[in-house]
Amino acid sequence: MIDRERQVLDRIERQRRRPAKVREERVTLSHGSGGKATHTLIEAVFLDAFGNPLLAPLEDAARLRVGDARLALTTDSYVVSPLFFPGGNIGDLAVNGTVNDLAVSGATPLYLTCGFILEEGFPIAELTRIVASMRAAADRAGVAIVTGDTKVVQRGKADGCYVNTAGVGVVEGSGELGMAAVRPGDVVIVSGPIGEHGVTIMLARGELDIEADLSSDTAPLNGLVAELLAACGGVHAMRDATRGGVATILNEMATDAQVSVIVDEDAIPVKAEVRGASELLGIDPLYVACEGRLVAAVAADHADAALTAMRAHPLGAQAAVIGRVEADQPGMVLLNTAFGGTRIVDMLVGDPLPRIC
Amino acid sequence: MIDRERQVLDRIERQRRRPAKVREERVTLSHGSGGKATHTLIEAVFLDAFGNPLLAPLEDAARLRVGDARLALTTDSYVVSPLFFPGGNIGDLAVNGTVNDLAVSGATPLYLTCGFILEEGFPIAELTRIVASMRAAADRAGVAIVTGDTKVVQRGKADGCYVNTAGVGVVEGSGELGMAAVRPGDVVIVSGPIGEHGVTIMLARGELDIEADLSSDTAPLNGLVAELLAACGGVHAMRDATRGGVATILNEMATDAQVSVIVDEDAIPVKAEVRGASELLGIDPLYVACEGRLVAAVAADHADAALTAMRAHPLGAQAAVIGRVEADQPGMVLLNTAFGGTRIVDMLVGDPLPRIC
Repeated sequence: MIDRERQVLDRIERQRRRPAKVREERVTLSHGSGGKATHTLIEAVFLDAFGNPLLAPLEDAARLRVGDARLALTTDSYVVSPLFFPGGNIGDLAVNGTVNDLAVSGATPLYLTCGFILEEGFPIAELTRIVASMRAAADRAGVAIVTGDTKVVQRGKADGCYVNTAGVGVVEGSGELGMAAVRPGDVVIVSGPIGEHGVTIMLARGELDIEADLSSDTAPLNGLVAELLAACGGVHAMRDATRGGVATILNEMATDAQVSVIVDEDAIPVKAEVRGASELLGIDPLYVACEGRLVAAVAADHADAALTAMRAHPLGAQAAVIGRVEADQPGMVLLNTAFGGTRIVDMLVGDPLPRIC
Repeated sequence: MIDRERQVLDRIERQRRRPAKVREERVTLSHGSGGKATHTLIEAVFLDAFGNPLLAPLEDAARLRVGDARLALTTDSYVVSPLFFPGGNIGDLAVNGTVNDLAVSGATPLYLTCGFILEEGFPIAELTRIVASMRAAADRAGVAIVTGDTKVVQRGKADGCYVNTAGVGVVEGSGELGMAAVRPGDVVIVSGPIGEHGVTIMLARGELDIEADLSSDTAPLNGLVAELLAACGGVHAMRDATRGGVATILNEMATDAQVSVIVDEDAIPVKAEVRGASELLGIDPLYVACEGRLVAAVAADHADAALTAMRAHPLGAQAAVIGRVEADQPGMVLLNTAFGGTRIVDMLVGDPLPRIC
């Protein structure tokens, strides 16, 4: 790397380390993107107020102790539009999303809550379909929905149906999974092709005048994670790639572990339909949400075992090593492009795909 | 009771025992009232799909086992309008409400999640105030907010800010609290004056052209519950009286325990301002939401101990016995009115006070 490049990288890094401050006076769609604005909001508003040692690691699930039990706890609200799309609906998305946040934190998902915010006039038949999908998704993931809540707001104060799920899991293994455990030398693995959920939602909105044989990748990852952890002792961290896509996770990895992540564009599995639609939308598939894919950092000497275990599971059949972790330039994600160049992959800025989940 | 009265009561009872069926094709505000329509929706749509032994009791919190730990898990979404009102805002309401659902189930609240759904354009300064109130409420209740989520929707797709909280508590006592444990001979105690939260919200909306020195009763009940349970072994069931008010809880008690509940109108503590505003609104304070009051069923020979313990706590200073549980006419709630008559107190029908919490 020549000196000028290094100076630029250093300047960017200094900028990044400044205390977070929300510059806007009002909430924008970008604050819900999962990318840079979301992180700033979380750091400046939520961490500042709620700050406690359990919240601080900002993993997908908090790890807790209750008596002798080690638990994981997580929550997500779902505001996807449209509510129904090829491959799923807001109901199974809400179950799978929370199951996945528990699974990638190394917990076995057990119990879910669900909270509905319904708009006056929402068809009972659609609610019934959503609820049936939640039950089916819970059965598939082996979890039980044990408590819930329903609120109704006037017409024009919601968009049909919003769903919140929270989930409790039990942590049984001894290893401490988390971004802080990622080490230089680790390889980065993605469990399958990226971006299908996000592109499916965009197509379902009719915003692109193309047809593609795509459906959401929404799926529960706890089975895949269990197989992976059983077969491979070298897993250091996992995240499911939702809002902000794989690029955002790689940036979280680089920042939280103070490492750099070098990714090979050619190695990233992307379906041709996803690549084509992304080009039309002017977005990079690296930033497009998945709902059934995980990114893992694995010790290099365990990479083969990890890949073999993942590929043996239907949801990991196309798992691939997409990059590696290095000590140099901590905080940076760099992409070796298909054309032989190298570019910085930043967090998602703005929100090209609002309400994707 | 004369024969004709009994025939009427029997007919009502048969009607009530029919399988729940949602007659409407679309969601109405009544489905969020906490009253009859909400119960029908839960039984017909949610219980039917999610049905499992943990959900079935429909207590305020589900009771779970994880390893050797006995846990309680609950969730509520908050859509109160306005967001800020005398005595609190949506933030402390969301913390106290979930703390209370855990406390009345006999659990010690420990950890909370929070999920925000924000409308594009919502002022960051208001969000910061809400979050600060959540932290203060969590500190007061002795719980930690350990994980969260933020989604943003376009203008016109929400109403500023909706909040979901889920909570985990630990169950340490040996007793099985719950409506099913209520017995004929129990006395019914309310922990303080009713209806202040609901009337405060109505006044804050400017829908009544009156001024009253009222503020929301929103408060964490876990301290009061701990004092009560420590002093009194005869507590059979507790609920916090939120949507649908005390009347709805008494109906749940009568239905779930298959008992009747006889209430003395004169014994119910109601502030003069609440009574006056309720008359202007044409509603009965028994149906108006509280956010810091509980209703308990206590064995008669423990009633004095329970009252003494509650009155020693600031949140229970005006605790009062308001009625008793009988074996006759199971499922019925009857009110001895101030004028010497008796009338049936049904569940809330319709929703005179939408978005009260």
